[in-house]
Amino acid sequence: MDLKEVRTVAREKMKGYCRVCPVCNGVACAGEVPGMGGSLTGSTFKSNVDDLSKVKLKLKTIHDAKNPDLKFNFFNTILDFPIIVAPITGTVFNMGGALTEREYINSVIKGSLKAGTIAMTGDSADLSLYEEGINALKNVDGKGVPIIKPRENNHVIKNVKIAESINSLAVGMDIDGAGLITMALKGQPVGPKTVDELKEIVSSTNLPFILKGIMTVEEAKLAVEVGAKAIVVSNHGGRVLDHCESTAKVLPEISKAVKGKVMILVDGGIRTGVDVFKMIALGADGVLIGRPIIVGAFGGYEEGVSLILNKMKNELYQTMILTSTKDLESIDNSKILIEW
Amino acid sequence: MDLKEVRTVAREKMKGYCRVCPVCNGVACAGEVPGMGGSLTGSTFKSNVDDLSKVKLKLKTIHDAKNPDLKFNFFNTILDFPIIVAPITGTVFNMGGALTEREYINSVIKGSLKAGTIAMTGDSADLSLYEEGINALKNVDGKGVPIIKPRENNHVIKNVKIAESINSLAVGMDIDGAGLITMALKGQPVGPKTVDELKEIVSSTNLPFILKGIMTVEEAKLAVEVGAKAIVVSNHGGRVLDHCESTAKVLPEISKAVKGKVMILVDGGIRTGVDVFKMIALGADGVLIGRPIIVGAFGGYEEGVSLILNKMKNELYQTMILTSTKDLESIDNSKILIEW
Amino acid sequence: MDLKEVRTVAREKMKGYCRVCPVCNGVACAGEVPGMGGSLTGSTFKSNVDDLSKVKLKLKTIHDAKNPDLKFNFFNTILDFPIIVAPITGTVFNMGGALTEREYINSVIKGSLKAGTIAMTGDSADLSLYEEGINALKNVDGKGVPIIKPRENNHVIKNVKIAESINSLAVGMDIDGAGLITMALKGQPVGPKTVDELKEIVSSTNLPFILKGIMTVEEAKLAVEVGAKAIVVSNHGGRVLDHCESTAKVLPEISKAVKGKVMILVDGGIRTGVDVFKMIALGADGVLIGRPIIVGAFGGYEEGVSLILNKMKNELYQTMILTSTKDLESIDNSKILIEW
Amino acid sequence: MDLKEVRTVAREKMKGYCRVCPVCNGVACAGEVPGMGGSLTGSTFKSNVDDLSKVKLKLKTIHDAKNPDLKFNFFNTILDFPIIVAPITGTVFNMGGALTEREYINSVIKGSLKAGTIAMTGDSADLSLYEEGINALKNVDGKGVPIIKPRENNHVIKNVKIAESINSLAVGMDIDGAGLITMALKGQPVGPKTVDELKEIVSSTNLPFILKGIMTVEEAKLAVEVGAKAIVVSNHGGRVLDHCESTAKVLPEISKAVKGKVMILVDGGIRTGVDVFKMIALGADGVLIGRPIIVGAFGGYEEGVSLILNKMKNELYQTMILTSTKDLESIDNSKILIEW
Repeated sequence: MDLKEVRTVAREKMKGYCRVCPVCNGVACAGEVPGMGGSLTGSTFKSNVDDLSKVKLKLKTIHDAKNPDLKFNFFNTILDFPIIVAPITGTVFNMGGALTEREYINSVIKGSLKAGTIAMTGDSADLSLYEEGINALKNVDGKGVPIIKPRENNHVIKNVKIAESINSLAVGMDIDGAGLITMALKGQPVGPKTVDELKEIVSSTNLPFILKGIMTVEEAKLAVEVGAKAIVVSNHGGRVLDHCESTAKVLPEISKAVKGKVMILVDGGIRTGVDVFKMIALGADGVLIGRPIIVGAFGGYEEGVSLILNKMKNELYQTMILTSTKDLESIDNSKILIEW
Repeated sequence: MDLKEVRTVAREKMKGYCRVCPVCNGVACAGEVPGMGGSLTGSTFKSNVDDLSKVKLKLKTIHDAKNPDLKFNFFNTILDFPIIVAPITGTVFNMGGALTEREYINSVIKGSLKAGTIAMTGDSADLSLYEEGINALKNVDGKGVPIIKPRENNHVIKNVKIAESINSLAVGMDIDGAGLITMALKGQPVGPKTVDELKEIVSSTNLPFILKGIMTVEEAKLAVEVGAKAIVVSNHGGRVLDHCESTAKVLPEISKAVKGKVMILVDGGIRTGVDVFKMIALGADGVLIGRPIIVGAFGGYEEGVSLILNKMKNELYQTMILTSTKDLESIDNSKILIEW
Repeated sequence: MDLKEVRTVAREKMKGYCRVCPVCNGVACAGEVPGMGGSLTGSTFKSNVDDLSKVKLKLKTIHDAKNPDLKFNFFNTILDFPIIVAPITGTVFNMGGALTEREYINSVIKGSLKAGTIAMTGDSADLSLYEEGINALKNVDGKGVPIIKPRENNHVIKNVKIAESINSLAVGMDIDGAGLITMALKGQPVGPKTVDELKEIVSSTNLPFILKGIMTVEEAKLAVEVGAKAIVVSNHGGRVLDHCESTAKVLPEISKAVKGKVMILVDGGIRTGVDVFKMIALGADGVLIGRPIIVGAFGGYEEGVSLILNKMKNELYQTMILTSTKDLESIDNSKILIEW
Repeated sequence: MDLKEVRTVAREKMKGYCRVCPVCNGVACAGEVPGMGGSLTGSTFKSNVDDLSKVKLKLKTIHDAKNPDLKFNFFNTILDFPIIVAPITGTVFNMGGALTEREYINSVIKGSLKAGTIAMTGDSADLSLYEEGINALKNVDGKGVPIIKPRENNHVIKNVKIAESINSLAVGMDIDGAGLITMALKGQPVGPKTVDELKEIVSSTNLPFILKGIMTVEEAKLAVEVGAKAIVVSNHGGRVLDHCESTAKVLPEISKAVKGKVMILVDGGIRTGVDVFKMIALGADGVLIGRPIIVGAFGGYEEGVSLILNKMKNELYQTMILTSTKDLESIDNSKILIEW
């Protein structure tokens, strides 16, 4: 099995839901929510990709960074590279159903571990989906991170406890899910959280808590205040708010404000190892990837996921060589030029 | 009936006049006047949409604006949300004639009221069209606003008196119709107005007077001077002057000059509740929408109009939740980022 | 006959040479020289249109400019509007040959006069073409302007004398033809001119001398120095040098340098009366148009040319009404906003 | 044989590898490595072309530069014009194999000499390819330049000695090949070089040494420090690092830093003589061209290469006439206007 085959199979299996375009940029699937697209005009999804593409790299070839180190410390677990799989559910209504939720999440978790990294699992209107993620993580001794939707606090805390019970590496909430129409339509209300509500949740557990869906400096500081150990700069892949700022654009100022006080992850439009390099240069510690992994899972289950991750790892390695970068700490904004 | 069906039916009924494109942006219909397009190259229509799309929103999810208030005070009538239907005529020559003027204006007025807002009615070379609007408003106790073309003063004043006679909520003139080729071709001359002419018109009535077609600070101030109670920042949907500035771009400076002295409405390229939010953040009090309502009326009469308005209302509500905005007064330029 | 028919007939008659596109912008015909396109990538042709499209107009409707005056003084001949037909030859190799040179030039000259303006006639490798233009102008008592290619001085002066002999209104040289490949290939060398060579030519006649092909301030001043009475800011419609600056972009600084010392005409990408307005606002006194006239002539001979010119005249009139402009002298840069 | 035929034949012979597009800009072939495209999204290839297209020329026609001199001094060999053919290998895996490596390199070398310039020859995972280039150069008394991949130093130095043995005009290394995936996959590792490693290589020969793949000021200065006599500002045609800066954009600052201390060549997106002019105006002494030559060789062997080069020479000549430029030294940034 190779990547070309993975993509061909995925295209067939997701017909009507994902076209597996040459470049996954939100154009063809604009407005397809449910589905794989961005909401309304798809502008946020497209901006994530476009703005990131306007970050340019400085090619360097006279140096001694001949064998870069990609190791990434995730709360004392050492990953082979700084790419984590984003929490995703909805194989039926978003992806067409060729894989069950169980097949999907198992492919993703095992494929990630095989490649040397980990996956997050998600939550959904259908209550069984959080459970599927938990069960799949349990099978690998909790090596991954359950992410909970911004439901009522008591429901969130109950789910945090379940995460603890399987010894997950961390737990978190995708607070950017506050605007998910698909949840509301199915009687599972989600919404924004006050500082007090967040404090109650974070203090309910000893697991490192990850707050996903931070897009402003102000809220990054609030995340630190409520005790989060990591944030994910994310606009939910453009699926909750049209015409939202891109993650690439808000990342530098957020990083300037909270770098070192909290781990900074980011997602949105990351398609290659070159993009991973750019996000770290813009201020992230590591990244999440979503849609490429869906293609991997639908195109080749565990092996497909692993192939996608290895490809991106190799691209990151190559990019580090060609930019005179010996390790992740050496990736900074002196390596890039922003054309926006 | 759902929105997909409304759009499908509308596409069929307006064949040759409107393609009901995925995004209504003036590209496919460029130059189609009469028709649904912008004049000549369609540049003004396109700029309205493009410039508005370059206004970005700041996603916020840590806050307590969990249930925003969308109520809008329109001259002491409380509307459920700040979206009013624009004055439109010409179902035959602009839209293909599948609906009569009477069917159209009744669908629009009733659909608007059903959704919780009101409509404006228009004027045209064909004198019976103003009358159709008046009759339709009369049936709903005048809950709407007749808008008169910039004809000779005595004709305008006669029409103002007719509006008074049905107890309309306000009355106005779309002075941007000064350049309407379609009117001139049919022997109904229209043109610009001097300050004195406007004063004569405005002072002829006790109804709040709305001046539609203001695109500069200078003329916004003149509108205040002549006694207008509301202005509509509008370039007539790009149908009178090619390569005109977009309404989104001129709005902030106009708002800075006259906010609080006159109600500021705006139209041009507003397609979703996200766009409504943006226009208010750029300085408007409320907005008018035109082309989406035509699609609604042709696709489902009263119910189609109501579906379109409810969709935009829900999108505005969602946008307010995701930007930490508790009411319309809280929407300001701190919520946006302009990329032009 | 109407404009739609003119365009349909022209499209048929110029098949393989001109597609008569919805907007004539140099995209489809890029590189087609000979033909109707711009040279190589067609970038100059495209820039002429693109840069002009980025000039925006300020819509105004509260004023008394209800009946604008479009009269244009061309060396004491009063034209009805400030649009002159550009010198064009080559109906066979550039346009496909459905019209002979004689048919073309007669259509253009008579159609222009009928509409209330005049035409220029051209010069070419084929020596008979200059003669055709002269003969056609002779039939209308010299009401037009022969334009000579930058050949050897003695040849140019001989042609100037021929222009004098038919009492043309002026005479000129399209010095931007210096790089015409088509001329060189046919054994009729053309090239740049020194100041001394130009002085010799200009001083050889009492006719007002027009220098066409000025794109820099430096050369605009030289044009004044050598005694030219008018310049045409022109890059030969993008047909001699790829990636040349657009005429719209260089016009303001040239105008600032020589306005009032010499008549400033401009061509390049002018397609509507709105574009004419813009060029005057950028600093021109009047404009030349080329490709739209070819469509007119091929689509309807004299009447087609006249229809095209009348359409542009009406558009200019309309634009003046909607920008509060009572005459050509009132068109200045306060009426526009440049977005480049 | 003419250029149209060359392009038609090339399109046929490279089916599946190169579409011979109207403008060769990296769009259609994005990601096709091996193949003719740029790596991953093809962004670097596209930027090379796009950024260069945003450099505009100032048309001038009043002057005496009627017969420009294009002669170029390449280490005491006088070339007829400042365009050298870039080192290219891989006719089978990159171009489809209709020409053997031997046919290709002989066509290129002989076609270049016939047109009045020289070619560089390349190196590849397949060791016989360097040999093919050497043999072909030997047949023309060494009139050309072998370029070696950044292999282990001893292998590089061995290849330098081979170049010396055939009396090549110079020798060099395409250090930007450090990231070539195709090499690594075939067991021929390449990588970045330290200053010391470069010094060892450069000091091993008396031939002028050319360092190809310099994209920063810092490394341009290092190239001078290690004793290189020429640099090529190059990102390997966009084939090693996606989203790399374009060569046009980095050229001015590199030129400012080392002009006069080392010969500055540049490649990337140069398609016409107009582009050659621009690159020299941005700071280069001369240029390399790649993809256009491949089309020439596949479309017409030696004659095809010669036709392509002559076309570009004529375009450069024409451009110099139309910009008042009498020789290469007179091409500077006063001739251009940068719109990025």
